[in-house]
Amino acid sequence: MTSRDGYNWTPATGLTAGVPSIGVIHPPTNISSSEVLYDVIVVGAGYCGLTAARNAAAEGLKVLLLEGRDRIGGRSWSSNIDGYPFEMGGTWVHWGQSNTWREMTRYQMTSEVERSFDFSYGVNHYELNMGEKGYTMSHEKEDELLISALNKFTNIDGVYGRNTIPLPYSPFHTAAARDLDNLSAQDRINSITPSLSPQERAALESFVLLCSGATLATMSFHEFLHWWAMCGYTYAGCIDMLISWKFKRGQSSFAIRFFTEALATKRLSYAFNTPVAHIHDTGASVEVTTRAGVCYRAARLISTLPLNVLGDVSFDPPLSPGKRAAIATGHVNQCVKVHAEISNKHLRSWTGVAYPHNELMYAIGDGTTPAGNTHVVCFGGDNKHIDPEVDVEATKRAVSNMFAQQKETPQIERLVFHNWSKDEFAKGAWFFPPPGLVSSHLGDLRERHGNVLFANSDWALGWRSFIDGAIEEGTRVAYEVKTELAERERVRSSL
Amino acid sequence: MTSRDGYNWTPATGLTAGVPSIGVIHPPTNISSSEVLYDVIVVGAGYCGLTAARNAAAEGLKVLLLEGRDRIGGRSWSSNIDGYPFEMGGTWVHWGQSNTWREMTRYQMTSEVERSFDFSYGVNHYELNMGEKGYTMSHEKEDELLISALNKFTNIDGVYGRNTIPLPYSPFHTAAARDLDNLSAQDRINSITPSLSPQERAALESFVLLCSGATLATMSFHEFLHWWAMCGYTYAGCIDMLISWKFKRGQSSFAIRFFTEALATKRLSYAFNTPVAHIHDTGASVEVTTRAGVCYRAARLISTLPLNVLGDVSFDPPLSPGKRAAIATGHVNQCVKVHAEISNKHLRSWTGVAYPHNELMYAIGDGTTPAGNTHVVCFGGDNKHIDPEVDVEATKRAVSNMFAQQKETPQIERLVFHNWSKDEFAKGAWFFPPPGLVSSHLGDLRERHGNVLFANSDWALGWRSFIDGAIEEGTRVAYEVKTELAERERVRSSL
Repeated sequence: MTSRDGYNWTPATGLTAGVPSIGVIHPPTNISSSEVLYDVIVVGAGYCGLTAARNAAAEGLKVLLLEGRDRIGGRSWSSNIDGYPFEMGGTWVHWGQSNTWREMTRYQMTSEVERSFDFSYGVNHYELNMGEKGYTMSHEKEDELLISALNKFTNIDGVYGRNTIPLPYSPFHTAAARDLDNLSAQDRINSITPSLSPQERAALESFVLLCSGATLATMSFHEFLHWWAMCGYTYAGCIDMLISWKFKRGQSSFAIRFFTEALATKRLSYAFNTPVAHIHDTGASVEVTTRAGVCYRAARLISTLPLNVLGDVSFDPPLSPGKRAAIATGHVNQCVKVHAEISNKHLRSWTGVAYPHNELMYAIGDGTTPAGNTHVVCFGGDNKHIDPEVDVEATKRAVSNMFAQQKETPQIERLVFHNWSKDEFAKGAWFFPPPGLVSSHLGDLRERHGNVLFANSDWALGWRSFIDGAIEEGTRVAYEVKTELAERERVRSSL
Repeated sequence: MTSRDGYNWTPATGLTAGVPSIGVIHPPTNISSSEVLYDVIVVGAGYCGLTAARNAAAEGLKVLLLEGRDRIGGRSWSSNIDGYPFEMGGTWVHWGQSNTWREMTRYQMTSEVERSFDFSYGVNHYELNMGEKGYTMSHEKEDELLISALNKFTNIDGVYGRNTIPLPYSPFHTAAARDLDNLSAQDRINSITPSLSPQERAALESFVLLCSGATLATMSFHEFLHWWAMCGYTYAGCIDMLISWKFKRGQSSFAIRFFTEALATKRLSYAFNTPVAHIHDTGASVEVTTRAGVCYRAARLISTLPLNVLGDVSFDPPLSPGKRAAIATGHVNQCVKVHAEISNKHLRSWTGVAYPHNELMYAIGDGTTPAGNTHVVCFGGDNKHIDPEVDVEATKRAVSNMFAQQKETPQIERLVFHNWSKDEFAKGAWFFPPPGLVSSHLGDLRERHGNVLFANSDWALGWRSFIDGAIEEGTRVAYEVKTELAERERVRSSL
């Protein structure tokens, strides 16, 4: 099946919208009548919504899952081109990500992963293009450079953040952590600038921007330090947990397991291509109205809409001032992720940076495609933002600029990407907050609103903005809804 | 409620058997009739059995949970003396332990933890007693000593095991890993002896024995390296993940959540004080006979019996040769864990080793009791094994010997412990395998036997022998049983 989402470019076909994915659901709905009172309606079929819907259905609730897209997965999905998975959004998993790994263990999928990095052959080095100047160094030197730079960046307490964020699942466990949320990454870099070599600074800034998809000035320093704490306070931990292991058959091979399990309960109704417009909590139940004007009712509703699109649905009664303030602020990740197939270089073992001059700033060799080409994945952000489909030649130049230290111009055979910034159901990539947003509004974002619960990776406690955070949140609200509906049932049956 | 398990000694009361715990279940059974066909019988109410029973009941199955003890938790439970939790077995948790942390997140308990270590006041150092000689050093020096020693011990591939165990959830992912399972820890130490200082060797050996509860000759080197890989291949990771964070209200405050949730489904029948004697798979169903001669039937049975007691139940048809060979081998952990309350020293910030001469070899300050005493937890193993209740004065001497570098004799106000070696339902502490057991029989141990499934932390893939592995395994088999019973239902209803 082919999704409407994503773009594919080859010299032969030019740019085409839509790519195949095993995450596209057919038939797009199994609803026969709208005259049903559900136990719970779940809005959104990303990992958070899938988890909530699956758990609720498995535990006996009658569930309706509504999704605006034609596919599951939200901001994490894989296209499947000639059987090769290109990850369009969230990609990597690790056993340090508790919710993700628990699900992978339950589905017995823990061996269905492979490494992104493979430093064993071909162009096997790190390339640091800094505009005027450029350097080539071994991966060992790359590690030394980044360890040195990141240790300076994170060492706000003499122990690399350990005392400041000792228990990362406990938000702002220390007052010092809360203070750090007032700083941007730029603020922190300014305070350590004299200690950074030019290479350290370019490597550090591009790595930090790879995490945020934002600009140094718009991203919270605390949020980066929170990632760092989740990764065990080391660069090696960051590499292990953030960017090492991916599904051999793509993210959608994982997401589909949740959907299939939910469907097998026979308690899951669903409708794709069904964006919601309005959510009305009457007190007795919740009514959701789709953009097409169809109304569904349930005892509870779980919204898994991301922060940046939560304001596009109207709520009656209106959302709390705290939620509205958070929505007005929004998150700042406008990551640009572009896959390229390259035929004339063995780049499987290459990593590179082109910063600050280039539209794409960080790239790695990520696989070998069925055609025998190297698959390179490149990342840009809001610092020099592009819409890759608007000018494909410019996008190709941005890819080529990643290899400026190499004589031979790369032969680009394919580009694959999803423009998350222009995606009406995302308006950005994974959550990354500006200074102050999380310390001011994490509690607001997690708060329920009458019979409406809000779950999203954007306000998870642990791996916030990761797949793991989405599963964490879906698990949380499904448990909450199940527990209170069971209690309601208990009270009723005892009357 | 007071459990039969555990011992408490004070100067006033002397030694008494049985300690209070919130994990004791009353009434001990809710079964009204044995004339019921269950969907699944779960044998054992440790974390593995609790997880399996909870998941199965929550997902619609009719469950019977049978337990030989008077309490939940198996090898992990907390006594509750004057409101203070002493951890009788498995204690520590961390967000790198995916199954445990997922459950803690689901129950919103991630802030209900506190640190074991608190290096801030009083006797604030590391004490290394080596018999004839003894040393006192700062905790920073302790870390340096152990990092140096452990890096030598684990560095079998130039990258501290990373290449040998790159994906620890995939058993023996490399041939080199499999080869290492033929080595004992003693074999490995013999090969690096020239590089170790006497202090490094004592610190290393006592740390390694703390992990295994065995002897250096009887414990697999691979299994230790597998722990090391799970901890991110660093000593800091080991400390973080193995021994840092514990429940403020004790392990039983976590375990009881599983039981309470299962009970709330109204699909859980249970019987404590009900050891099983015989399990008969007729093909059509499984019959379990208790030691008291009562028989129960179910479509499936999940045995969560640990390896060292699996042979005490008879199976018809008999278990496979592979399982029987593993049972005949058994695991080698005979850890001795003794809590002591000490009134005349501020030992909250102290850690110490007394090795190889003493019956207890590793201890830390672990809390302050309601009486204002320091709570110190001490560990011994099979290398100089004792049964602490047999000679309390000798046990007190072994505790006192931990403090040989300190002039003042410790004033011991209380001892609390569980003799796992003499426990008929455990016959040892957490699983630790001898060389060859895991590489030869991991598959055998995980294999089902007709309608009988076997789940235990002892053969988990990830945090094998941890609470996390128990939850991993309970989750695995509950999913397997649910899926196949649902399929049976589907086929039946389509006939």
